[in-house]
This record gives sequence, structure tokens and C-alpha cells, in this order.
Amino acid sequence: MTPERRGKLLNALNKRQPDLAVVLENVEDPRNVTAVMRSCDAVGIQDIYIITNQGPRPEKYSFVSARSADKWVNLHHFDNLEACVKVLRSKYNRLLTTSLADNSVEIYEVDFTQSTALVFGNERRGVSAEMCALADGNINIPQVGMLQSLNISVACAVCIYEAFRQKKAAGHYDQAALEPARMNAVWESWTEGYETANWDVEE
Amino acid sequence: MTPERRGKLLNALNKRQPDLAVVLENVEDPRNVTAVMRSCDAVGIQDIYIITNQGPRPEKYSFVSARSADKWVNLHHFDNLEACVKVLRSKYNRLLTTSLADNSVEIYEVDFTQSTALVFGNERRGVSAEMCALADGNINIPQVGMLQSLNISVACAVCIYEAFRQKKAAGHYDQAALEPARMNAVWESWTEGYETANWDVEE
Repeated sequence: MTPERRGKLLNALNKRQPDLAVVLENVEDPRNVTAVMRSCDAVGIQDIYIITNQGPRPEKYSFVSARSADKWVNLHHFDNLEACVKVLRSKYNRLLTTSLADNSVEIYEVDFTQSTALVFGNERRGVSAEMCALADGNINIPQVGMLQSLNISVACAVCIYEAFRQKKAAGHYDQAALEPARMNAVWESWTEGYETANWDVEE
Repeated sequence: MTPERRGKLLNALNKRQPDLAVVLENVEDPRNVTAVMRSCDAVGIQDIYIITNQGPRPEKYSFVSARSADKWVNLHHFDNLEACVKVLRSKYNRLLTTSLADNSVEIYEVDFTQSTALVFGNERRGVSAEMCALADGNINIPQVGMLQSLNISVACAVCIYEAFRQKKAAGHYDQAALEPARMNAVWESWTEGYETANWDVEE
């Protein structure tokens, strides 16, 4: 591994944000899941929770496997919503849904410097009523147009980049935040098989 | 037309932002173009410039025609880059590219309350060198992960929602901004065929 490569890996590792996660509840389109993974990597979100309790679990997320984002983030699969919520409750202080239902707060009014798991729902049905009932609040992306139909990967990116903006201003990217054991585990997964893989081409 | 429907149309019309435009230079994937159109509608961008000087012009933008976003935004097609830039120069004070090249300013440092046309490039090649040379500046979305590969529709949404956030704080959505003649033209295009179309279902 070149020093430049190691530096790049360490830099990304030191900017991972263990207090922010994305939850995808029955998101069906593999392209949306892949785009979400790339956006999460970009803002330093390491953990993505994938709930599939309606229909089969999508197996292929990457449309271009050589640029696969799942090398860089951890996908946590659940086929039981309550089991997933239990894990989320143990790791994050707050569970926020992004439902088009009423009683939601604009993302610009949300304090994203707090530990948060953000739930995005199915492309057509949105976040389930069951999940909304279990959550601590509901947030929305303001829209002033005629449609109310932002693409799910677009909606996710707008939300987590607003989180990025706030967290960056609050200094969350100024020092490493992962626990040492987690940092080691992520490092292992990132560097596994490095000798045989030509990452500098693949990434 | 019901009063509610008219109110919704007028509300969206009064929030359109004539001082902000999106330019897509040889973006190829129709799904990306459609997602960009939906995001533009959501933040009140009425004008999208589509430059196609490499390869055929994509004709079908809508994967679900009944939810077509091209009812609500104006697409301006050009097969000549310089002709498009000439029009952009006549309508916007500033032309900013989103190239991964060096010498770019983070979107959070950009003053989006200024009149701006924002250029997004091809999915693989990015914004052309020719366009970058003609532009007034280059901006970037900060990324702290291992990949540098945000989806184009995601990148566009993150940029224009940062513009939305700034413009909203500056009061740009508090009063109508379209010129009267333009407002009439947009109203005409939005309400054309209203009597025969079941918009309340389609939108």
C-alpha cells in the first residue's frame, strides 16, 4: 500500500460519523440503494440499515461492481422492523422518519448535531405507518413546486448533506469519532484483500 | 378548475426563481434528467438548459409519463455549446461549473443569492474543458469518503437545495419574481388542456 493510499484511507476513516445512520425501509430499486450508499460514503456515514419485510431482499445493489460502494459502508440487513428499531434505539438517540405525512419539521429546523437514525421509505408507499409510530419525529424537505415527488436517493442526499453542513460547522469532522474497536474493524474491511485488488483502478 | 387547484398553481408560480437555472451538458441517462427536473420543480427552478453536442439528443425523459415533470419546467435544447452559453450570459450574471477539477469553491462558500446558471456534466466525463473555460467559476460538493462519485441527479439536488436554503433565508421566496410576461407564459403552459386532463390524479 502506498503512503498516499494509506493516507486517503485514514482520512476517510477519521471522518466517519458514528452518530448518524440511514435506514432504508423496503426501498426497492437497486439503483436508489446504490446511490444512497455513495451519498452516505461521501458524507461519512458508515452504517446503513436495510429493512426488507415486504417482498424479497434485493441482492444486487451495484450496477457497476468495480465502483461498488458497499466496500466502504456497512449494510445491516433486517427482515423484521421491530428488531431493526431495537438495534437503532441502542445506537442512536433519535429515530426520525421522512414521511410526506403531516406534522413534520423542515430539515433546516432539525438539529443534526444530535445522534440520529434517518428513515427513508419505499419509492411509492413511503415510510410505513408502523415505523412512523415507532419514531421520535418526522422531517420534510421543503418543496415549492407542483410535484411532491423527489427521487428517494435525491431526498436522502439532500437530508444527509444538510446534516453534513451542520455537523461540519459544529466541528464533527475535525477529529476521529469512531470507537477504537470499530475503527479497527472498518480498517480491516477496507484493507482486506488489498494486496490482490487493484483498488487504485477500481475505486 | 377548483379554487384549491388554482391556489396551488399560483403558489408554485409565485415561488419560481428566474435568477437560478440548471444546465445539463451531455447528461445521457434519461432517469438522471427526469430526477433533475423533479428537483428543479421542487426548489422553483423553471428553466433547464440541455446541451447535447455529443451523441443523439435523449428524447424520452419521463419513465412515468403520467408524473411527467416536463409539464412544470421549461427545457431549452441546444446542440451548440457556445450558442447556449450566449443565451445563458444574456439571462444570468454568472455561469458556474461543477467539475471535479481543481480550483473549485465549496457550495457552502458560494453566494447563491446571486443570479446563477449551474452546469452539470456527463455521467462519466463530467463538465467539458470547453465549458469550464467559458465559465466564471467552478464549485464542488465536499466529500469526505472513499469514492468521488455522487450520482449526477444527487449532486444537482444537493447544490440547488443549498441554493434554496440560502435564497429562502434571503427572502427570495417571499414574493413573486417572474416578470409578468413570463409569468403569463408559464401559467398558460401549466393550465393548457386543463379541462381535458385529470391532473389531480396525474400529478
